Amino acid sequence: LRSPGVLPLCSRPPAWGRAARQSPGLLLAQRRAFSNNKILVELDEGSGVATMKFKSPPVNSLSLDFLTEFCISLEKLENNRGCRGVIFTSAIPTVFSSGLDITEMCGKSMEHYAEFWRAVQETWLRLYGSNMVTVAAVNASSLELLPAGGCLLALSCDYRIMAENPKFSIGLNEAQLGIVAPFWFKDTFVNVVGHRVAERSLQLGSLHSAPEAHRIGLVDELVPEEKLQDKAAAVMAQWLALPDHARQLTKSMMRKSVLDRLVAHREEDIQNFISFITKESIQKSLRMYMEMLKKKKS
Amino acid sequence: LRSPGVLPLCSRPPAWGRAARQSPGLLLAQRRAFSNNKILVELDEGSGVATMKFKSPPVNSLSLDFLTEFCISLEKLENNRGCRGVIFTSAIPTVFSSGLDITEMCGKSMEHYAEFWRAVQETWLRLYGSNMVTVAAVNASSLELLPAGGCLLALSCDYRIMAENPKFSIGLNEAQLGIVAPFWFKDTFVNVVGHRVAERSLQLGSLHSAPEAHRIGLVDELVPEEKLQDKAAAVMAQWLALPDHARQLTKSMMRKSVLDRLVAHREEDIQNFISFITKESIQKSLRMYMEMLKKKKS
Amino acid sequence: LRSPGVLPLCSRPPAWGRAARQSPGLLLAQRRAFSNNKILVELDEGSGVATMKFKSPPVNSLSLDFLTEFCISLEKLENNRGCRGVIFTSAIPTVFSSGLDITEMCGKSMEHYAEFWRAVQETWLRLYGSNMVTVAAVNASSLELLPAGGCLLALSCDYRIMAENPKFSIGLNEAQLGIVAPFWFKDTFVNVVGHRVAERSLQLGSLHSAPEAHRIGLVDELVPEEKLQDKAAAVMAQWLALPDHARQLTKSMMRKSVLDRLVAHREEDIQNFISFITKESIQKSLRMYMEMLKKKKS
Repeated sequence: LRSPGVLPLCSRPPAWGRAARQSPGLLLAQRRAFSNNKILVELDEGSGVATMKFKSPPVNSLSLDFLTEFCISLEKLENNRGCRGVIFTSAIPTVFSSGLDITEMCGKSMEHYAEFWRAVQETWLRLYGSNMVTVAAVNASSLELLPAGGCLLALSCDYRIMAENPKFSIGLNEAQLGIVAPFWFKDTFVNVVGHRVAERSLQLGSLHSAPEAHRIGLVDELVPEEKLQDKAAAVMAQWLALPDHARQLTKSMMRKSVLDRLVAHREEDIQNFISFITKESIQKSLRMYMEMLKKKKS
Repeated sequence: LRSPGVLPLCSRPPAWGRAARQSPGLLLAQRRAFSNNKILVELDEGSGVATMKFKSPPVNSLSLDFLTEFCISLEKLENNRGCRGVIFTSAIPTVFSSGLDITEMCGKSMEHYAEFWRAVQETWLRLYGSNMVTVAAVNASSLELLPAGGCLLALSCDYRIMAENPKFSIGLNEAQLGIVAPFWFKDTFVNVVGHRVAERSLQLGSLHSAPEAHRIGLVDELVPEEKLQDKAAAVMAQWLALPDHARQLTKSMMRKSVLDRLVAHREEDIQNFISFITKESIQKSLRMYMEMLKKKKS
Repeated sequence: LRSPGVLPLCSRPPAWGRAARQSPGLLLAQRRAFSNNKILVELDEGSGVATMKFKSPPVNSLSLDFLTEFCISLEKLENNRGCRGVIFTSAIPTVFSSGLDITEMCGKSMEHYAEFWRAVQETWLRLYGSNMVTVAAVNASSLELLPAGGCLLALSCDYRIMAENPKFSIGLNEAQLGIVAPFWFKDTFVNVVGHRVAERSLQLGSLHSAPEAHRIGLVDELVPEEKLQDKAAAVMAQWLALPDHARQLTKSMMRKSVLDRLVAHREEDIQNFISFITKESIQKSLRMYMEMLKKKKS
């Protein structure tokens, strides 16, 4: 049992924030070469609001490079006292994010799988535990051709706005690919939509249309596509009207137990991922899936 | 804290499933004579879908015999690789199930109470933890004259469809009979309808009409009576379209903590039941309730 | 993990009820002088229903005196076998309760802060854990000029009815004042509205209009102001139709883990409150807030 109590106001980030920062994930990231053009970061110094625009063609898949750049960009903003909130959106009109990059999970070394999974964990730990206000402006389908990652990014924000296009969909579709979402995807999902909706949606690997996603609470609001960015800015302004410290400590109180659980089981979770992904049956089915995607494209 | 992690795909049932299978409940059940005609089991080998039809007149009450037959039938299907899903429904047009058989709780020996309660536990452990897709087709009132059992069976399935007859009702009515639902009935209910609805409904022992049951999420869908079986088959087909392993592991991830809790406290729960049910005040009130039911019938 | 099991019916209050009764909070309260006119208590011996009417002008703020009187009044009713339920309402037409009295948190001694916070805890432990049926008849705005307390009282009841005046509002507004709700306010809130709504509402310190409070489940029902008391009596009659013991044990099963958590961390929670409230930055901001309220009033 945790006892957050009346948390004292303080300028230090809460403990789990510090833990995330000291984690080996980022050290690895800092040491390895990485691209620096998969995400466009713009900071409006007047409002203190940054926008991170995903621009990794063709489908903003969450590759190791993408995730590394995401973590480093987010950390820079987190440490910048002039930045109080971040809006996440896509610079590619047809897709928000297609999900975890399947090529990172196929035909690679154990070390590569470990590095990739650590980056996925790191991304979630930093985003779900961010001290900044985080708003997802889902301006296109979170077209989860790949294991759902765009949906996880959105679920980890403080608020989710989606373009009200009935053709757009979003969800955690792992089960449809024959794989299983990790427990912390599940915890994050349950915290947003509740146990029953999560149980059904995860078992079916459901991709929810925008109206359905709104109805089940997966997104907070639907707006016409052309008003999405304005709405995101308005929501951000509403959240930034609150004193930062009280809001941050409240957020930590709500999310700490779920964050702590991954922090406590991080290496175990990586080993689980590796022993799962290296099974021949899984490798085979991922290869077949990649073939199918390639054929679709051509 | 549990860490299911990315669960490896495997052909073995998850740990809690194996535990249930090794439990003394079934051993007892296997050794005692039991009727074999309270449930009609039909397996469609083409689709891999079985139907279990309750046919224990007059009101499908959950007697020790009924529960024993239920567990053995379910185990046979679970171990049959040709069976991937089960639909539960009633062969008696007027009632789905009237609930736990009150005669098993009244004027019997301590040994009998223990055996009965173990069978109730076993039924829930097997059904809530089943690797198969489970759909409740509630084609009549879950007419809980008796402590709610029909509702528990439905709550333990993956999906609940109910005939949209406003006269039909369903709920966990224990409090109305002066008794208390065990913690695992409560956990199962909370996982479906959330904490607030469960708190209110359990305290009032509410029987919800079909429309209300749908509104609070106790059932997933209402359909006209004549379309109920077709709808159940369609839902089953939708769920069976998913790869079994991924779906099973996802289900286990969602339900494991609640199942583990009863497994860890099973004997204690039986002792609690016995010391409760053998109180003279409770025995007296159950006898009076049975008298009242007999008078109603005649 | 707890195992409430099938809880035996008994005439003794459940363990957490007894613990609350033996707690030092009440001993302190019994020893100190306290006003006895901030709450009007009326008991209808025919129905067994008491009404506690808050009448502490100007705004029913939850001062140490108010909370002490609340606890003692509630304990008297709890120990009176003729009383089975309590309705909470305001005798001041313009306000249900304005919240925790900010003057108790500003410029006082450490001992005073400890005594005040212990009284806030005691109030919640007794009300959330009451064996009686508790109904909040929110007949005016829970005008949380002060850190939300009226809302906590309502959240701790079994049922909440609110006058359907769109000008009335209710919520846990701590974040707006730059402070953080303690974990047990949060737990109580999550148990009523679920994790997602609580996370958003607590981070924004939202005051919800009556219709919105109803929509998110913060209140169970809206009724015209002139029908509020009749409705409260009707709801009370419905709940009192249930056998007391079964209802009480069910209530305890639903609330015990959250109550136990504060009981186990009570002194730590008081120390957290003191170290938080005695920070110069917080004292300064509370003083400024009081000045602002005074100016508004004049």
